[in-house]
This record gives sequence, structure tokens and C-alpha cells, in this order.
Amino acid sequence: MELLVKIPSDIFGYGAAILTTIAFLPQLFKTFKSKSAEDVSLIMLILFITGLALWIIYGFETHSIPILIANSLTLIFNLSILILKIVYTSNSTK
Amino acid sequence: MELLVKIPSDIFGYGAAILTTIAFLPQLFKTFKSKSAEDVSLIMLILFITGLALWIIYGFETHSIPILIANSLTLIFNLSILILKIVYTSNSTK
Repeated sequence: MELLVKIPSDIFGYGAAILTTIAFLPQLFKTFKSKSAEDVSLIMLILFITGLALWIIYGFETHSIPILIANSLTLIFNLSILILKIVYTSNSTK
Repeated sequence: MELLVKIPSDIFGYGAAILTTIAFLPQLFKTFKSKSAEDVSLIMLILFITGLALWIIYGFETHSIPILIANSLTLIFNLSILILKIVYTSNSTK
């Protein structure tokens, strides 16, 4: 008797892509609300955004729509966090 | 005459995986050095770590070593940031 139900690996893939994409929305809202991103590493944002741009090229080259969509959204969220960080840092030093 | 050199898509994939993994090291060092992660969203870390765990299951199910390695490292870095955040938040409210 087989009691274990085999979950298709795609379910994990889509769940993973959705979670690692929407994860940056709370960070974006928090940064916007607190008007501070001092503790958020600038180098992290630059490396991460560059990596996401490469994922988008990879998704484009390999015709992978899920990779294209997930990484484009993640890039938009992180670019917004980076812009807010630069704006708030520049305001705080005025 | 073909002047454009075709770069293999794998190069972008590996570059993307390396950058989006090592990106969290500067955040980890920054958090450890400043002893503060107040501006880093707790909900982001929880969603991101859960998503990374699903990527690891997906990499395991699809026998993808690059997905397994990249996401395991990213999970270790982000779990460390989460632990530091909890420790520093708990210390600051004492």
C-alpha cells in the first residue's frame, strides 16, 4: 500500500519562484514606510540586480518564460529598493 | 560578415547563479559589523528562506546540481542574516 502521494516537482519550482519573487515586496514596503534602508547593503543590491539581469538574458536565450517573468519582477522590486535607498541616503546627508 | 560572437547561454546562467548567491555575503558582513538589521524586513527573510527551501527540493527532484548548490548557499547566508537580526533585535529590547 502506497500512502505517500508523489508531488510533481513543478509544484515546488513554481512555489519557489513565486516566494523568492514576492519576498522583496515586504522589503520594498518597509523601506518606503520607514524612509530608511541604512541596514540594507548597497553592494548586495548591486550584485543581486546584476545577477538578476543575467538571469533575464539566460531566460531569453533559453526561451524560459517562468525564468523571464520571475526575475523581471524581482529585478523591478530590487531596483525600486535601490532607488529608495539612494534617495533616503542622499536626503539624510543634506 | 558576422561580427557578433555568440555567447553560450550557460555562461549567463552560471554568472547569474554566482552573483545572486554571493550577493548576500556583503549583507551578512554588514549586519554582523553594524550589529543591526532593523531595516531588513523579517517577512522578506522568512518568505525568501521558504522559497529557497522549495528551490532545494526542486533541485533535488530534478537532479539539478547547480540549483541545489546555489540555493543551499543562498539559504545558509540568509538564515545567518535572519539569526543575526533576531539576536540583535532581542538584545536591543533588553
